Amino acid sequence: MRITPKAELEHRCARLQGKMAEAGIDAVIILQNADLFYFTGTIQSGCLYLPVEGQPLYLVRRDAGRARMESGLKEVIPFGSPKDVPRIVAEFGYPEPKNIAMELDVVPVGFFERYKKVFPQALFSDATPLIRQVRMIKSHYEIHAMKDAADQVDKVYRRALEVIREGITDIELAAELEYVARRNGHLGHIRMRVFNGEMIFGHTISGTDTAVPAYTDTPLGGVGPSPSFGQGASFKPIARNEPIIVDFAGSIDGYLVDQTRVFAIGGLSERLVKGYEDMVKVQELMMAIAPSRPTWGALYESCRQLAVEMGYEDSFMGAKGAQVSFIGHGVGVEIDEYPFIARGFDTMSLEPGMAFAFEPKVVFPGEGAIGIEDTFYLADDGTLKQLTYSDQRLAII
Amino acid sequence: MRITPKAELEHRCARLQGKMAEAGIDAVIILQNADLFYFTGTIQSGCLYLPVEGQPLYLVRRDAGRARMESGLKEVIPFGSPKDVPRIVAEFGYPEPKNIAMELDVVPVGFFERYKKVFPQALFSDATPLIRQVRMIKSHYEIHAMKDAADQVDKVYRRALEVIREGITDIELAAELEYVARRNGHLGHIRMRVFNGEMIFGHTISGTDTAVPAYTDTPLGGVGPSPSFGQGASFKPIARNEPIIVDFAGSIDGYLVDQTRVFAIGGLSERLVKGYEDMVKVQELMMAIAPSRPTWGALYESCRQLAVEMGYEDSFMGAKGAQVSFIGHGVGVEIDEYPFIARGFDTMSLEPGMAFAFEPKVVFPGEGAIGIEDTFYLADDGTLKQLTYSDQRLAII
Repeated sequence: MRITPKAELEHRCARLQGKMAEAGIDAVIILQNADLFYFTGTIQSGCLYLPVEGQPLYLVRRDAGRARMESGLKEVIPFGSPKDVPRIVAEFGYPEPKNIAMELDVVPVGFFERYKKVFPQALFSDATPLIRQVRMIKSHYEIHAMKDAADQVDKVYRRALEVIREGITDIELAAELEYVARRNGHLGHIRMRVFNGEMIFGHTISGTDTAVPAYTDTPLGGVGPSPSFGQGASFKPIARNEPIIVDFAGSIDGYLVDQTRVFAIGGLSERLVKGYEDMVKVQELMMAIAPSRPTWGALYESCRQLAVEMGYEDSFMGAKGAQVSFIGHGVGVEIDEYPFIARGFDTMSLEPGMAFAFEPKVVFPGEGAIGIEDTFYLADDGTLKQLTYSDQRLAII
Repeated sequence: MRITPKAELEHRCARLQGKMAEAGIDAVIILQNADLFYFTGTIQSGCLYLPVEGQPLYLVRRDAGRARMESGLKEVIPFGSPKDVPRIVAEFGYPEPKNIAMELDVVPVGFFERYKKVFPQALFSDATPLIRQVRMIKSHYEIHAMKDAADQVDKVYRRALEVIREGITDIELAAELEYVARRNGHLGHIRMRVFNGEMIFGHTISGTDTAVPAYTDTPLGGVGPSPSFGQGASFKPIARNEPIIVDFAGSIDGYLVDQTRVFAIGGLSERLVKGYEDMVKVQELMMAIAPSRPTWGALYESCRQLAVEMGYEDSFMGAKGAQVSFIGHGVGVEIDEYPFIARGFDTMSLEPGMAFAFEPKVVFPGEGAIGIEDTFYLADDGTLKQLTYSDQRLAII
């Protein structure tokens, strides 16, 4: 079990303060769990008040004792409600903030209004773009946690090789794999930032179910156990000669990696086998280009272009009409971080420290989907390193 | 697998429309997954536009085909963005809404602003209290799904009896129980409405860990596998003569029940055994009072009063300084629904159709916690029925 080192937290807060100074923001008030974990090292009920200069103030309703034990931040202060914040800020000698940023993509209206009320003179803006920019550059410490998550997901992959057999249902297979992950420290919870983003361990889906579109912002969705959770594994029994997709997020100490491998009993159609080989080629192209630090959008376009040239215009990243406009997504504390390897993200480039999952996939309605996914990061020396490492070959059982 | 019947959906929408008319609201725009599931029968990316009179319009970005298959609502309309809503509303001949309600406790500021922009003349208010009031009255259909969830959680209880042994860790035990639940259709996801509410299957915790306060709004929290998820099972090995708490939420077809049972290898201290018996007495008091339809707050106060009289003022519902101000919470699609059996809820009374978990617990820091939890509902004939039914005795192994 890791306790985030004090130096990590100080460095993270200082980097956000640097971006706040550039943007003319006096204070950021952080409320959301993933951001609290990143900047404080723990998640207790409360908020982090980060002034543009000076020590961050971690205001904790519950539980202040645990916050003191688990957080390396110097100032952990018990508090009752947003009403207390201006007083505490003044007590620490910080000026009254005129420009406050909050996480407007995730904080509900009702919570936001309470903070607006206690700082009636302030202007409010969205802190999330700045927070995302800080969080997108991983430290060695973070990469180390993600390597442990990659070990976990490889155990899941190996277990899939053992338990896949004709007649087992997708949800039974999912249960087996989740069991292995949990015994190896998986939190049992995947953080997804986007509103309404619901994700469990991943998607374990087989056959034509792999080609069913879902509400999730993912190339493959699955049917799920019921319309109340219409994604991932259903009660469908696994048959011979169909793709079995294990898209699984490893999770250790708050850090994620994402990996997809495809299994089949017997074998697969020529079209699916070729689709798999072609998606590996898209991955290889990405690996060749990434070290040149293209913009996220340019990397997306180059890889999509190859898929189109290989004949997948209508099947790449989803069935026609349900295609998503990304091939990769940053991972770390959340499954949907910067960088977005996606259409239109033309202003930001890949940089050392960025970690992302890359998942070229094709979908043939009525037949099935196929593809591959691994998690990568750009190292300090500019080379692209692969974090997930399970055998990349189609797993024919 | 259940598909919510059309008549259920129509009745639910009509009930919300009745409350809208009383409150002077022209339209409710529903965005959040749990509410979408309740009012549409599925969860696709999009929104439900419910006018105070007329058919609800289910506007779906992704996937409209699935929405048509899974939802019994008549009007499923593909749409691209909030900008399209006024045009679609006009096309259906509905008047331009002047008073719009949205789920302000859960919708993030950024999403809300987009809807505000497309209805610049409208006044906006919070739809959640009305939605909660509709959802708090369960139909026979819903109670039936919850009975299935109670069967699932009983299987979990029985499995705990089989696998608890000295030396197994809390997280290993949790993995075993989650495995059983998943194989029996558990969605793997517990919906919690409150911002930052994170919940997996429940809390499997033992020994002094049961008395550790957490950020969760629960009487017991647990240490968790890391500060990144500081609740529930940790890597602590289970020992003899300590409480092993299995607080588990069953989940079938989108419906939840909540049950807590306590196990021990060998036995427990006199204080803990007495604590358990006394918490059963608090439960019995609740069962005796509930049919008289007290206010939620009055029911809370009566039960808390008994706990205080039995000497638990400083240990009831949390250790001193970390006590929560509720003993029960509504359950259904979410784990934190109306009714709240909690301090201060003095205006609303128990009514037939209300379902809730009731969880009297005591916490002794440094020793452990103990208590019981079951899920109940008030039937049409005014009697209180118990949904969860695992053996209520302390399970001494």
